[in-house]
Amino acid sequence: MCGIVGFVGKKNATPILIDGLSKLEYRGYDSAGVAVLDKENNINVVKAKGRLVNLKGKLDSNPIEGYIGIGHTRWATHGEPSDINAHPHCNADGTISVVHNGIIENYIELREWLMSLGYKFISDTDTEVIPQIIDHFYNGDLLDAVIKATTKLEGSYALGVISSKEPNKLIAVRKDSPLVVGVGKGEYFVASDVPAMLSHTRDIYYLNDKEFVEITEDGVKIFNQEKQQINRELVHVTWNADAAEKGGYAHFMIKEINEQPKAIKDTLSSRVVPGKPINLDNITITPEQIKNIDRIYVIACGTAYHAGVVGKYVIEKLARIPVEVDIASEFRYRDPMIDKNTLMIVLSQSGETADTLAALREAKSMGARVIAITNVVGSSVSREADDVLYTWAGPEIAVASTKAYTTQLITMYMLALFFAENKKTLSNAEIDKIKEDMLTIPEKAQEVLKNKDTIQKFASNTYMHKDMFFLGRGLDYAVAMEGALKVKEISYIHSEAYAGGELKHGTMALIEEGTVVIALAAQNDLYDKMVSNIKEVTTRGAKVLGFTAKGKTGLEKVVDSTVYIPEISDVLSPVLVVIYLQLLAYYIAVDKGCDVDKPRNLAKSVTVE
Amino acid sequence: MCGIVGFVGKKNATPILIDGLSKLEYRGYDSAGVAVLDKENNINVVKAKGRLVNLKGKLDSNPIEGYIGIGHTRWATHGEPSDINAHPHCNADGTISVVHNGIIENYIELREWLMSLGYKFISDTDTEVIPQIIDHFYNGDLLDAVIKATTKLEGSYALGVISSKEPNKLIAVRKDSPLVVGVGKGEYFVASDVPAMLSHTRDIYYLNDKEFVEITEDGVKIFNQEKQQINRELVHVTWNADAAEKGGYAHFMIKEINEQPKAIKDTLSSRVVPGKPINLDNITITPEQIKNIDRIYVIACGTAYHAGVVGKYVIEKLARIPVEVDIASEFRYRDPMIDKNTLMIVLSQSGETADTLAALREAKSMGARVIAITNVVGSSVSREADDVLYTWAGPEIAVASTKAYTTQLITMYMLALFFAENKKTLSNAEIDKIKEDMLTIPEKAQEVLKNKDTIQKFASNTYMHKDMFFLGRGLDYAVAMEGALKVKEISYIHSEAYAGGELKHGTMALIEEGTVVIALAAQNDLYDKMVSNIKEVTTRGAKVLGFTAKGKTGLEKVVDSTVYIPEISDVLSPVLVVIYLQLLAYYIAVDKGCDVDKPRNLAKSVTVE
Repeated sequence: MCGIVGFVGKKNATPILIDGLSKLEYRGYDSAGVAVLDKENNINVVKAKGRLVNLKGKLDSNPIEGYIGIGHTRWATHGEPSDINAHPHCNADGTISVVHNGIIENYIELREWLMSLGYKFISDTDTEVIPQIIDHFYNGDLLDAVIKATTKLEGSYALGVISSKEPNKLIAVRKDSPLVVGVGKGEYFVASDVPAMLSHTRDIYYLNDKEFVEITEDGVKIFNQEKQQINRELVHVTWNADAAEKGGYAHFMIKEINEQPKAIKDTLSSRVVPGKPINLDNITITPEQIKNIDRIYVIACGTAYHAGVVGKYVIEKLARIPVEVDIASEFRYRDPMIDKNTLMIVLSQSGETADTLAALREAKSMGARVIAITNVVGSSVSREADDVLYTWAGPEIAVASTKAYTTQLITMYMLALFFAENKKTLSNAEIDKIKEDMLTIPEKAQEVLKNKDTIQKFASNTYMHKDMFFLGRGLDYAVAMEGALKVKEISYIHSEAYAGGELKHGTMALIEEGTVVIALAAQNDLYDKMVSNIKEVTTRGAKVLGFTAKGKTGLEKVVDSTVYIPEISDVLSPVLVVIYLQLLAYYIAVDKGCDVDKPRNLAKSVTVE
Repeated sequence: MCGIVGFVGKKNATPILIDGLSKLEYRGYDSAGVAVLDKENNINVVKAKGRLVNLKGKLDSNPIEGYIGIGHTRWATHGEPSDINAHPHCNADGTISVVHNGIIENYIELREWLMSLGYKFISDTDTEVIPQIIDHFYNGDLLDAVIKATTKLEGSYALGVISSKEPNKLIAVRKDSPLVVGVGKGEYFVASDVPAMLSHTRDIYYLNDKEFVEITEDGVKIFNQEKQQINRELVHVTWNADAAEKGGYAHFMIKEINEQPKAIKDTLSSRVVPGKPINLDNITITPEQIKNIDRIYVIACGTAYHAGVVGKYVIEKLARIPVEVDIASEFRYRDPMIDKNTLMIVLSQSGETADTLAALREAKSMGARVIAITNVVGSSVSREADDVLYTWAGPEIAVASTKAYTTQLITMYMLALFFAENKKTLSNAEIDKIKEDMLTIPEKAQEVLKNKDTIQKFASNTYMHKDMFFLGRGLDYAVAMEGALKVKEISYIHSEAYAGGELKHGTMALIEEGTVVIALAAQNDLYDKMVSNIKEVTTRGAKVLGFTAKGKTGLEKVVDSTVYIPEISDVLSPVLVVIYLQLLAYYIAVDKGCDVDKPRNLAKSVTVE
């Protein structure tokens, strides 16, 4: 997730681009850059690692000026944050400059193809192939070249393109990444999102996938792939900047919950392809090393710890390697048994969690190999680990983690399959079946997001309770833990997760008339046992919201409300179930009037031990 | 823990003995027996495995009659429940008969010595040495012979002895096991506890250790070891039978909490001796097998699971074998990785917990070796496991487990040391240091039990709260889990344990002005970090009861009330800390007016899955 902007008009583009980027910093902030066409029709590019303020500093000492330009604020996916990896990216002679938001899934093939044609690359990004392909296809018409270039691109993109060969125009296009066009008085804007242009105009063109925009000082033309012009209605927006930043949602949390189909798709993209081995970026662990692993520690805190609990289950099940999950702040002090055959997997959205980082260092000093799973390229854990797997969830603003968690789950599944492939603990057919199932998750997640009525109703009937219990067996128990934590974090209700079969060994004493219980019966194998456990609490008067797989019958007779999960294999169901639980926590907190995005006492990235 | 009775008078002894035993069934009920001197001066013995009703049935079909007799209801420690292992035990020609409550620690040496003298043994009990030693020393005076016999006995005992050679008397003695004498109208009683005689008399002699009683139809004489007669005041008791059964305590739970020094001592007895290898009864696992263990699963439910969490910590720390603790109802469904080098340790007070038993069977079917830790000799888990280690806690009546938990901890320590000795992961000096420290626990536990004012006061100030949090790091976290469960079980307060360093990753949102927090800072290594975590909650207004080691300073400035733990090594401190937490839970429940011994929704032994 990154932010892009573009400007065509009669004012100096640079401050307008910077102002627009400042409104898009919520989309990423590890580096930024602008490219502006000057009066001599040269493209001047200035880029800087770090927050936008660094770019501003550079521009203050080396100002660039012009009437047409593009800009970018980055959330690194391919290539760590650096001046070189920052956008815009250019072709070799600097005549074409591109900003990109999205992921080019086939960039490795494209890069090889371009290299065979003599093109050279200076960055680690996927984006750099784009100006080179445009260069390759350029034949006197920039729009033509961009249209042709997109026929080569797989993945997602919103692009802004300028060229010194056609210094009067800006070309833009989108596919699976957002892009809007703003129309002012004799000036035009493109941006990933409306807030970037709200101080200049409220008249907006919304683009569909594979629509191309050509902007000159004469106006905006929209084309389809066949270069046929399209008529589009101009929309006048009335939102304020704050609402616009949240994409029209009331809170970042619900926006991020809704971004999950996309975040999951991005995280899967180019890594999971049936019939091909799992492609884990540039991971350097060797098949030999994988064979020698006799023990995996999964170490994390909070929500990421709960992703680790699912990870333990799936790695043990699919790859048959013993896994121990531990809370990072506990791990260091238990004198852990670690040697060179120990693999440690650390999870941290921010990559800066102090407890997790300390555990990573401890394990490394004892000779363990470390794989980090993080959402922030170039973060401390990504730098210090031997290998890194990025969740491509984009920046997460709400303190309560949602899309980072589900993409951590996806990454755990990919790792488990990767180990299973290497250790041959599953047949190719079995692995392919799971992969195909994984690729259906984005669509099914969308289905879950649409099916929120029962959840909303249950929330409005229970938000005033002081306690809640989440029950599940097996993987459902792992999901129950995360569901309980979400409710705790944002609605301050004392919720707690319990293994379905364990309740009777003590905590059952707390169940009385009206106690709220959220019961997960999504695991087919454990359905009957779980229904028995649910009856134990309904007998004592509990008010139960039950979850089970679509097609299962019987639960609705036992519980007060039933929610059905789109059909998916047991092992993958946590990704879908948890989205329901995130929605439940969200609506409870909203009904209670809590500060959803910034719950009391908590911080987004916990950099103290 | 067993119950003994004796009668001397002019009525038929048998029904009086049976009635007395029925009042002592709370002390054990796995077998029972009586010995009565008939009119021909022969001793008739009838014994039956199982509850007292079985013995009654046998006596109905084969009645025995006489004016002097002894009886016993058993809670097996040495030797499974059976007719043969039931008391009374006799010498070879049946002229001396003995009932015994307690444990003879040196019975193996004594048995070897007696066998070298030509004595034969038919039971597996420790008790059977006693009639044989008395026989050995008998020289025409039964009292003399009993006094001499006790000079040989190490351990604890309350004895009732009759002999056909002196058919007019009953000899009794106690050391570290209870024994009282009742004086009626021309009839006399001995028993482990007052309730056994309340329907006949309320006039009682209380005996001190190593005091001997000779009872004939002429009366009671009390002697010291030098056979000097002692004057003792007769006490008239006014309790009802119910209170008497609880030893004067208001509830079984507080009685059992107070029994812990004794239960711990019994469980340690003859097993932990500095300078000698840990003696784990008849455990058959070989040093070779121990060397080959590559993975231990500790499986249990509820409170026993929490003993397993401590067990993981200490086995990993002392014996360096990787341990995974799992909830029994979860374990079976996670497709666990088990082979012949896997050791499973199951913990169950009753030995009948259905979830635990199912996990045991699963592991055995997959080739694992199983060690069971249970409080009930001859229970299902003890029969099905490869090896059994008994906690010698005696019957636990209160549903909320206390003395079973602390003796499970002790057993876990012994196992860890046993593995450490076999694997030589610690030096002999290190092992001896821990053993010496372990042997101080009974005395320090007594000290804890006396120091309950701060706990009682905190309970009376907080019992009306709806939520509580227990915090700790490392072993303190394991103890916090058990503390939280105790409060849940008996006071229905929603209490939850959290690792001190993990709170800030989410649950901190629940901490507000007045939130009750019980903070354990007993681990020296983690003291500073824990104090920081405590400050995080006091800053948000939490009301904190803090625990730390005697001699530590600083905590009292941070928390509202501080309780100090007798000096002990970090690794052993859970046994002492948890006693405070049991007291806390108890006083909270009493203040709240809850049914302490029988909390709602719970059963003592959970024999359903």
